[in-house]
Amino acid sequence: MDTLAGVFVSEVVGTAILILLGCGVVANVALAKTKGNGGGFLLVNFGWGLAVFAGVIVAYRSGAQLNPAVTLGIVSSGATEFVPGVPVSPLSISVYITAQMIGAMIGAFLAWLAYRQHFDAEPEPANKLGVFSTGPAIRSYGWNLVTEIIATFVLVFVVIGFGRNGDASGLAALGALPVALLVIGIGASLGGPTGYAINPARDLGPRIIHALVPIKGKGTSDWSYSWVPIVGPLIGGIIAGWSSTILLPILS
Amino acid sequence: MDTLAGVFVSEVVGTAILILLGCGVVANVALAKTKGNGGGFLLVNFGWGLAVFAGVIVAYRSGAQLNPAVTLGIVSSGATEFVPGVPVSPLSISVYITAQMIGAMIGAFLAWLAYRQHFDAEPEPANKLGVFSTGPAIRSYGWNLVTEIIATFVLVFVVIGFGRNGDASGLAALGALPVALLVIGIGASLGGPTGYAINPARDLGPRIIHALVPIKGKGTSDWSYSWVPIVGPLIGGIIAGWSSTILLPILS
Amino acid sequence: MDTLAGVFVSEVVGTAILILLGCGVVANVALAKTKGNGGGFLLVNFGWGLAVFAGVIVAYRSGAQLNPAVTLGIVSSGATEFVPGVPVSPLSISVYITAQMIGAMIGAFLAWLAYRQHFDAEPEPANKLGVFSTGPAIRSYGWNLVTEIIATFVLVFVVIGFGRNGDASGLAALGALPVALLVIGIGASLGGPTGYAINPARDLGPRIIHALVPIKGKGTSDWSYSWVPIVGPLIGGIIAGWSSTILLPILS
Amino acid sequence: MDTLAGVFVSEVVGTAILILLGCGVVANVALAKTKGNGGGFLLVNFGWGLAVFAGVIVAYRSGAQLNPAVTLGIVSSGATEFVPGVPVSPLSISVYITAQMIGAMIGAFLAWLAYRQHFDAEPEPANKLGVFSTGPAIRSYGWNLVTEIIATFVLVFVVIGFGRNGDASGLAALGALPVALLVIGIGASLGGPTGYAINPARDLGPRIIHALVPIKGKGTSDWSYSWVPIVGPLIGGIIAGWSSTILLPILS
Repeated sequence: MDTLAGVFVSEVVGTAILILLGCGVVANVALAKTKGNGGGFLLVNFGWGLAVFAGVIVAYRSGAQLNPAVTLGIVSSGATEFVPGVPVSPLSISVYITAQMIGAMIGAFLAWLAYRQHFDAEPEPANKLGVFSTGPAIRSYGWNLVTEIIATFVLVFVVIGFGRNGDASGLAALGALPVALLVIGIGASLGGPTGYAINPARDLGPRIIHALVPIKGKGTSDWSYSWVPIVGPLIGGIIAGWSSTILLPILS
Repeated sequence: MDTLAGVFVSEVVGTAILILLGCGVVANVALAKTKGNGGGFLLVNFGWGLAVFAGVIVAYRSGAQLNPAVTLGIVSSGATEFVPGVPVSPLSISVYITAQMIGAMIGAFLAWLAYRQHFDAEPEPANKLGVFSTGPAIRSYGWNLVTEIIATFVLVFVVIGFGRNGDASGLAALGALPVALLVIGIGASLGGPTGYAINPARDLGPRIIHALVPIKGKGTSDWSYSWVPIVGPLIGGIIAGWSSTILLPILS
Repeated sequence: MDTLAGVFVSEVVGTAILILLGCGVVANVALAKTKGNGGGFLLVNFGWGLAVFAGVIVAYRSGAQLNPAVTLGIVSSGATEFVPGVPVSPLSISVYITAQMIGAMIGAFLAWLAYRQHFDAEPEPANKLGVFSTGPAIRSYGWNLVTEIIATFVLVFVVIGFGRNGDASGLAALGALPVALLVIGIGASLGGPTGYAINPARDLGPRIIHALVPIKGKGTSDWSYSWVPIVGPLIGGIIAGWSSTILLPILS
Repeated sequence: MDTLAGVFVSEVVGTAILILLGCGVVANVALAKTKGNGGGFLLVNFGWGLAVFAGVIVAYRSGAQLNPAVTLGIVSSGATEFVPGVPVSPLSISVYITAQMIGAMIGAFLAWLAYRQHFDAEPEPANKLGVFSTGPAIRSYGWNLVTEIIATFVLVFVVIGFGRNGDASGLAALGALPVALLVIGIGASLGGPTGYAINPARDLGPRIIHALVPIKGKGTSDWSYSWVPIVGPLIGGIIAGWSSTILLPILS
């Protein structure tokens, strides 16, 4: 239990830093009067990638999964331990996912604090929601789901592929930089249609915070779309885990 | 043959991820209503570079060539093995190139799926084709060929140069990051006239998919240009292989 | 004392290079007629991140703190030595901070020299001050302070987190690249409201130089805001140090 | 002499790749109808940085100096060997510098070939010259010289600083990536006034090629400015070498 407490704290802190910096860069680009306003898609990609970088570094203890799709991908790959001493079990899975959700909510809350004045200065409600959670460029639940499945498949498949040549159980095993680069790449390449949630906690946690905090002229939290960035990444992650059990023995 | 099956799967998977992310970033920048629309040339460069990064990581097994110009460059450098246990032979060469072509087609198909709605939303046929394959900024087959030869020469010569201080047989030997940086650099510097195919599979595979999939208002697949990004890279790669047999003994 | 002299020179030189390149990139983007004029927020982020990179490399001797908020963060984390042979004491603390201030002033002076003609060509006084020191996008001392506290907390907490797996006493312990990436990420994500001072010396040193050097049509040095980028980073750094004493034993 | 022949080839090849990719990225951004036209200053910075990356990798044999200012900086730092087995002497110095000049001319010639059609399509003569060599944003020989001295000082001082913890004699000793990052940073931060030659061969070699090759509507090669990017970098490099003999013993 001591060990699971460490995992819990590690995933909370890591995911909080991930989401603070990730939501932060969107705030910087999207909200009125910021210094990075209109800074472009590459700035957002780098911001999210380096958010992953910082989050992975501090969450070394738990393997820095920071993402329920990664957690379930590891489970579906047939791994028996998340990190040495932490067996895969219903309890440990729920510790990981609960911690990721709490961390995501803390991170989004801090990002809101850091950009407090700019949320009020921004006239457009959709831009405010966009800081917290993703939305589709063209709303089409089926195709949006396809995009999230493909993008998350790439994330989890490559992450598990990275792990091959060492500790196979998580992001931290391969260093923070490769994962950060992978996330920058996925965002640049597959972020166009849906804004690349590729992580249910990254989307749902901040969306809850959006619903809770006071923002002048806030607008809807768009709950009708909210299932897509949960279901899509989970499907993509699980398929990646399954695929890895078939492909990685051939590829190693 | 078991070993060649591993090489085959490795090159298919690696090239598929390369082309999924590579075509994806062009889709994100070029197609209507995406979040990265108009994101600029540097975004495209980073997207392709990180596509190489992800593809090389998963194709460790086969040396991550992912490119017939690299394969023929290694052959023309006089190497006797592609990776330990895989001798250079007509059979192994055709396994590599077939796998690269199949992988490129799978990747382009997935990129089309991920951006399905945006292909229909885009009015300009040339932008749709541009997601799949390259085209010249100023059409002039001779000069376009010169550009592709020079750019591919740099790729293959430096890749073989990298390999010098270790396993000389491919991209994975030197880590995915250096190759990714090299491709970002070649794209930034030599991508201006022809869009840097520098890889026959990267261009021909997606062009075939463009011809096959249904896209509203698709337009031509521009087969009259299609030989340039095949012939140019092959010439550049072979010259690089020859040059390396002369220069690398002096440079080591 | 010999050792402290080495620390002093190391921090002076490292901070001078940090501020020369950091103020330089802002000059390049903000001042009239430069080649990078209007180059965007990402260019500024990379410039400052690579400024950290260069500064950390040359300041290996002193642990490359280059920032009073890092120095006080290390102190409040309960460390007993800054680098091997340099115990934490009132004397060593003041050597670090004095050297950082002197280095920052030298760096800002050199940046002014390098962009001498462009300061005169620039009509807007606020742009000239912006090369030297930070200013809020929306002036609100309380919220500006909150932003600087959060951003500096991330910097110092992750830096101390990095150090865990090795020499825990400073930036150089973990290599210049991770710190540079962290600073690029913090700038991209949390730089929107206040321009991310996250370092009292980075802001106060150049502000003093702004007050001293002759610039045509210089305008105010905005001393009324100057306490925010001093107090905010120090609070953030100290909280990060305290937090690390609680969290890092759990996370290790 | 065998050894010096290896040094010669290494510096020719490395500098040729450096200048091919470096001039290439400027062509891509500056010339009419390219795919990267108007791609921005950060694209140019990355292009030059990655040009250094590729050039350094292939020039391992000679320490990858690729720059007379680095060569003279190493000489003025009191080093006795450039690389093991290559003593510093008037002969070896002239081999390095001659090879760098020849390599730079070859690289510029290849960049001209790769962008042949775009040189003719470009109406503005200054943009054509700008692909080959640097020019001041505000012409003022004295201040332009100051900028080049400061920028080259940072390059050579940090490069020699890098070398401290290993083979002190050149760029390759520290890996190609740190040097590439340093050059990206110097360009972003100190490239605004003069376009950061920071390398006499980088400026003079291509300027000679500009004078020699046929380009429609070519315009002047601006020989009146040409001494600044030669003299400034040499002064900066020599000062950096001298400084390192004083400061590095304190900083190590």
